[in-house]
Amino acid sequence: AGSFACTSLTSAYKTQWVNSVPRSSLNRAVARPPVHLSPSPPAVSQVAIEMVAAVADVAIPACAAVGIAFALWQWFLVSKVKVSAYAPPGNGHRRGPVFGVGDDDEDVGMGGDRDEEEEEGDGVAAVARCAEIQSAISVGANSFLFTQYKYLAAFTAIFAVVIFLFLGSVHSFSTEDRPCQYTPGRTCKPALANAFFSTVAFLLGAVTSAVSGYLGMRVATYANARTTLEARRGVGPAFAAAFRAGAAMGFLLASLGLLVLYAAIKAFGAYYGDDWEGLYESVTGYGLGGSSVALFGRVGGGIYTKAADVGADLVGKVERGIPEDDPRNPAVIADNVGDNVGDIAGMGSDLFGSYAESTCAALFVASVSSIGADHDFAAVCYPLLVSAAGLLVCLLTTLVATDLFKVKTVRGVAPALKLQLVVSTVLMTVAALVVTFAALPARFTLFDFGEVKQVKNWHLFFCVAIGLWAGLAIGFTTEYFTSNAYSPVRDVADSCRTGAATNVIFGLALGYKSVIVPVFAIAVSIYVGFTLASIYGIAIAALGMLSTVATGLAIDAYGPISDNAGGIAEMAGMSRRIRQRTDALDAAGNTTAAIGKGFAIGSAALVSLALFGAFVSRAGIADVNVLNPKVFVGLLVGAMLPYWFSAMTMKSVGSAALKMVEEVRRQFATIPGLMEGRATPDYARCVRISTDASLREMMPPGALVLLAPLIAGTFFGVRTLAGLLAGALVSGVQIAISASNSGGAWDNAKKYIEAGASDHAKSLGPKGSDAHKAAVIGDTIGDPLKDTSGPSLNILIKLMAVESLVFAPFFAAHGGLIFK
Amino acid sequence: AGSFACTSLTSAYKTQWVNSVPRSSLNRAVARPPVHLSPSPPAVSQVAIEMVAAVADVAIPACAAVGIAFALWQWFLVSKVKVSAYAPPGNGHRRGPVFGVGDDDEDVGMGGDRDEEEEEGDGVAAVARCAEIQSAISVGANSFLFTQYKYLAAFTAIFAVVIFLFLGSVHSFSTEDRPCQYTPGRTCKPALANAFFSTVAFLLGAVTSAVSGYLGMRVATYANARTTLEARRGVGPAFAAAFRAGAAMGFLLASLGLLVLYAAIKAFGAYYGDDWEGLYESVTGYGLGGSSVALFGRVGGGIYTKAADVGADLVGKVERGIPEDDPRNPAVIADNVGDNVGDIAGMGSDLFGSYAESTCAALFVASVSSIGADHDFAAVCYPLLVSAAGLLVCLLTTLVATDLFKVKTVRGVAPALKLQLVVSTVLMTVAALVVTFAALPARFTLFDFGEVKQVKNWHLFFCVAIGLWAGLAIGFTTEYFTSNAYSPVRDVADSCRTGAATNVIFGLALGYKSVIVPVFAIAVSIYVGFTLASIYGIAIAALGMLSTVATGLAIDAYGPISDNAGGIAEMAGMSRRIRQRTDALDAAGNTTAAIGKGFAIGSAALVSLALFGAFVSRAGIADVNVLNPKVFVGLLVGAMLPYWFSAMTMKSVGSAALKMVEEVRRQFATIPGLMEGRATPDYARCVRISTDASLREMMPPGALVLLAPLIAGTFFGVRTLAGLLAGALVSGVQIAISASNSGGAWDNAKKYIEAGASDHAKSLGPKGSDAHKAAVIGDTIGDPLKDTSGPSLNILIKLMAVESLVFAPFFAAHGGLIFK
Repeated sequence: AGSFACTSLTSAYKTQWVNSVPRSSLNRAVARPPVHLSPSPPAVSQVAIEMVAAVADVAIPACAAVGIAFALWQWFLVSKVKVSAYAPPGNGHRRGPVFGVGDDDEDVGMGGDRDEEEEEGDGVAAVARCAEIQSAISVGANSFLFTQYKYLAAFTAIFAVVIFLFLGSVHSFSTEDRPCQYTPGRTCKPALANAFFSTVAFLLGAVTSAVSGYLGMRVATYANARTTLEARRGVGPAFAAAFRAGAAMGFLLASLGLLVLYAAIKAFGAYYGDDWEGLYESVTGYGLGGSSVALFGRVGGGIYTKAADVGADLVGKVERGIPEDDPRNPAVIADNVGDNVGDIAGMGSDLFGSYAESTCAALFVASVSSIGADHDFAAVCYPLLVSAAGLLVCLLTTLVATDLFKVKTVRGVAPALKLQLVVSTVLMTVAALVVTFAALPARFTLFDFGEVKQVKNWHLFFCVAIGLWAGLAIGFTTEYFTSNAYSPVRDVADSCRTGAATNVIFGLALGYKSVIVPVFAIAVSIYVGFTLASIYGIAIAALGMLSTVATGLAIDAYGPISDNAGGIAEMAGMSRRIRQRTDALDAAGNTTAAIGKGFAIGSAALVSLALFGAFVSRAGIADVNVLNPKVFVGLLVGAMLPYWFSAMTMKSVGSAALKMVEEVRRQFATIPGLMEGRATPDYARCVRISTDASLREMMPPGALVLLAPLIAGTFFGVRTLAGLLAGALVSGVQIAISASNSGGAWDNAKKYIEAGASDHAKSLGPKGSDAHKAAVIGDTIGDPLKDTSGPSLNILIKLMAVESLVFAPFFAAHGGLIFK
Repeated sequence: AGSFACTSLTSAYKTQWVNSVPRSSLNRAVARPPVHLSPSPPAVSQVAIEMVAAVADVAIPACAAVGIAFALWQWFLVSKVKVSAYAPPGNGHRRGPVFGVGDDDEDVGMGGDRDEEEEEGDGVAAVARCAEIQSAISVGANSFLFTQYKYLAAFTAIFAVVIFLFLGSVHSFSTEDRPCQYTPGRTCKPALANAFFSTVAFLLGAVTSAVSGYLGMRVATYANARTTLEARRGVGPAFAAAFRAGAAMGFLLASLGLLVLYAAIKAFGAYYGDDWEGLYESVTGYGLGGSSVALFGRVGGGIYTKAADVGADLVGKVERGIPEDDPRNPAVIADNVGDNVGDIAGMGSDLFGSYAESTCAALFVASVSSIGADHDFAAVCYPLLVSAAGLLVCLLTTLVATDLFKVKTVRGVAPALKLQLVVSTVLMTVAALVVTFAALPARFTLFDFGEVKQVKNWHLFFCVAIGLWAGLAIGFTTEYFTSNAYSPVRDVADSCRTGAATNVIFGLALGYKSVIVPVFAIAVSIYVGFTLASIYGIAIAALGMLSTVATGLAIDAYGPISDNAGGIAEMAGMSRRIRQRTDALDAAGNTTAAIGKGFAIGSAALVSLALFGAFVSRAGIADVNVLNPKVFVGLLVGAMLPYWFSAMTMKSVGSAALKMVEEVRRQFATIPGLMEGRATPDYARCVRISTDASLREMMPPGALVLLAPLIAGTFFGVRTLAGLLAGALVSGVQIAISASNSGGAWDNAKKYIEAGASDHAKSLGPKGSDAHKAAVIGDTIGDPLKDTSGPSLNILIKLMAVESLVFAPFFAAHGGLIFK
């Protein structure tokens, strides 16, 4: 059903494009004089506009539905792998749940690495253990997310009130209609209505973000043990399980984001009618809601996962010399829970936020262009249509990996994932061409910062394309700097010869160096987008980069799922062969995680710039001149904020990890027989430490991000705020990229030494050598950089921008108490 | 004589201020209509202008002469301590040179730490050893600087040709006079003349910078052994020796910088006559020359010193377990040479560059204001007069430390240094008040970016004051974050309990956090300076921060001199008591070094902004709008440059250190009896490795800094270049501060554990404990951060700005080949 809908939609586009649009859009362009937002006189083209709008009205929800159906189908395929404590069909005998109570079960004991036949070593008992562990991880992740969401619900409620009060105060809570700001002569709904609908949109965004994160976590914890079990049948099936789960998450999230936003536009539209200014201004609340939840998801999840990881490694690997994910380590469950709440739920919320924000920014800018004045619904919804087309493209791309070219060997994993990136980019370029000519009029006019800009529809195609391909460039650069197949990581590994200090120096230098190409890629996208279509071009370039988000998320989620699968294999005491397979999946996942972070940062940069532009437009300032001291001071302080934020998050991880270390040491010291595998550690206590620490520690950085724009705007005015946003953007991008890549490189340098796959790697190893110890120190330092402070910075720069955009009417009306 | 000159000058100022200026300047203000740079009609006030100018003509060279005399006096006082292999007076017996050949001299042998009477343990033999070591360090530093200067001479010659050709081409090498740019109706000298004099100024700046660095190194290597020997008499005399040497360097540098600049203005003025536009435009070449040499001094010196330091520590302290500065370590001489070429010569050139650049920026802006139009020489020379007054203030401040409140105990060292900062700031605030009212007309008009700004003279006083006090705030913040007397460093030390990884995480977080207050201090200075007097205000605020540069340099140079003194004591095998005294001096020096870096960065930020403003003025663009894609792309790429630069410098240190490690290991392995102290290591080979590495590795980062503005300006135009400068500035400041402070904190956390002065510190130590090992790793990582990449970033941001200013006429005429 899914693929049928897709074909019919594509052909619907095609027919429509070939038959009606080129002619009619030419008419429309001719019929539209470049007058400042005065609506064009009714023309024949009005019919064409409505026809295309009707198609868009069908296409957007249909594509979203197809995406959801596809996600559920992938989930269903994963569910075919049975995980239970009961014997699988055809295997008659049953043994009870063993994990946690099965410590007398010597033959599949801790750390066993025998090479028996599957039916013996990895049989029923192992399945039962896997089920137990999966359930422990799932329960831990569930309980953390529920606790976190309770806090978030309180925060969201309070912040909703703030939004309503601030925006309502713009026209002193008047319920009267007022003249429109951008379309002279027309009447728009009262500011109070905008305040109300912005608040509703904010709540919708927050709930959707939370649901996306939650569903991602559910899929991931559902698939991790199944991946382990599939590894018994070979690398191919295990890869398929992990990747399908990732796809399920990716499609659910992308489709849900699109569908809810579309529904909100339709629902709000019923009230707003002709007032598109108010409508699309209110809709921006959706982005704010999504990003606010993402902030706490990323920061809280990041602190959770790294406190557990660092704590587990420092005592387990360094002090006690036991392997990673050894079930004797009390922090091991917390560590695996962390992968799901941090890397899955956090990353999901983050990319959802980017997607929602870039769409909102594009919608807002389009609504105050000639498109909005003409009430050309399909053209305004161009960003949604691009995303909808992206869903179909990603669907085809996923089939390439799961059905067309199945992964069969360990060596095939990384190329398969890279192929996903390339295929989705190529297909999406074609799809963007189709959507652009179908949805957009041949020419339209943008009004930004008081300037009038004539734009042709093919300009926008180039904006999508540059975003897409810049994303690919960033992805491949990230791979080069973080994969141990290339010289940068090998140099870092080599520097471990002289100890941890040189390892850290080389790793930091690598991270700094890895910033160069992505920054140029982003700069080119910005220049092309800006030159072709001003701020709208930037927003569309961001959407282009994010149009393949479903594939991106699939690749990204695949990493932590494989990581968990490996952990479960180790904890369940499965055979060495299984562990080797899951390790290979995990190593590829490490690099794809870095690629995913690269995408997240690149898109965040473009999104924030688009939001920044929309904010400036909305705040009614014509320029952001660096020579104005207010702007420059904002720029300088803004560039400092990512440092302040990183200081908080890194120190949080450090402190929480110290607590975890003490607890793990305490358990090893006080629980008799723990080290010998004869006793069960108190996993729950470690889970609690991570939970408490992350919930407590996510508040101050969250407050910094949310309060900085409010304080700057309220007390120092919109120019200082504009400077602040620009400064945070240009500075944050660099730290985020370098932190992610330094961390990824250290991690893979360690894996390179451990794997010992070349003569060079063997000369550094084996595990436990001095060079390996130095590499472990680097890896531990990289943990908070790559999984807490680095990725959270994406959200810092986006969230500050979208918050400024939402509050822009307030700042413009009442801002600048100290210097106006 | 010095203090007499000073008094008479001050009274001259006073008389002049009380009697003539308020009245006359009022007249002048009234007589001066705010017309765009048309000179005022001759008025009675012309007499007053010439009178004040005559006083300035005497005061500036006189103060510089007093400064030089004072420096020589301090040097003379240091020279009273005799260092020679011959017996000091009253100590009849002589023993030959022992260092290097005296390895059989058991009773003062390696690592001896007996507590005998001075005459026995630290007697003639020790003096002889000290003389030997001092001479080895001095020879090494001399030879490095000469080699480096040979390269620099080649670079300077080539770059001089580039400057001449680029600037000469502005009007196609025409020798005809042309209409002035800022003063309509007047005729100015040809662009070719500006090209010629800019080149001459560039050469003058380069030579002065090199001479300053060289003299600083000479004083420092002259005083290091003398400080060691004075430590026999107690902490007080040792402190006095080190501090006097620092003061000699500080005063020489500040006075020389002032004098050469003044002479250049006078000499160029003989040709330029009434054409002040051309005159002060050409003079900016002086700043470019100073900063270019400083770049290579900082980067080359930084790589030299840290390659030696890291290499020496990695093998000596970590692998072999011998103390720092142990004479058995082959890299020990290179390490001590490094302190002199990096921390002394490099820092000296750096601050000289800042001083020269901020003065040039202020002179240029003043020359195109109504002051320039009126040809009010004293007012144009206001920046020079502030610096001249600063010399006298610093002279008095120095006497406070050396004569008024002499240091007597170990505990007195740090407060004495802090007192210097406070006293100089307070006195300078008063001096600035006097100079401002004496030199400036009551009102004048600035013309920046097409805007007309009326400025009152007391505005400028506030600009000087805000710069001064912001500097003090930065200094004290730096102290808080890097001194082990406060909790931040103690927390970092405490985190060593769980190993090197947490130490690094906490140290990085500390560095990030330490950025907050300095950035706000700089932001406030910028806001105040900009608001009161536009770009001129920023330049004057920068000068305010630098007006006490002589004291700042004295405090700063004191650090490496004490460090060297401690090294010499260790190498000469002096008693534990001596070593304890020099260690205490060194620990205080560590914090003051960090404070010095804070000043250098703060002033660099202000200077670059002033240069940036002057560049924008000169390039003839009215705004630098972030919403312009050219500007934003520049901003983003500019913010990336400090990362690229740091990647290069850190990797250079890492690679050079690896080579050093191999050499040191090789010597320990192949020289029989080296570890037992029975053989002499091959110090010269290690010196050569550091020299070669630093000369080779300083090229690529230097090329990056010098080429980036040229490429941006030539191919992408002045707006992209303006964005690039702003981006590099706001991003570079953060990394520079955080890198310096992380490094300083790690160093002092290690020292805190080693000293074991509290119960907490004792619980972490002693030397060789796991926590101490973790601390040593942190210290080693911090070395390149705090002494190579961090401080070099000051020069990156300044040099790019001054280069843009010098080449502005070229960019304005021919720039923007790709996008105009």
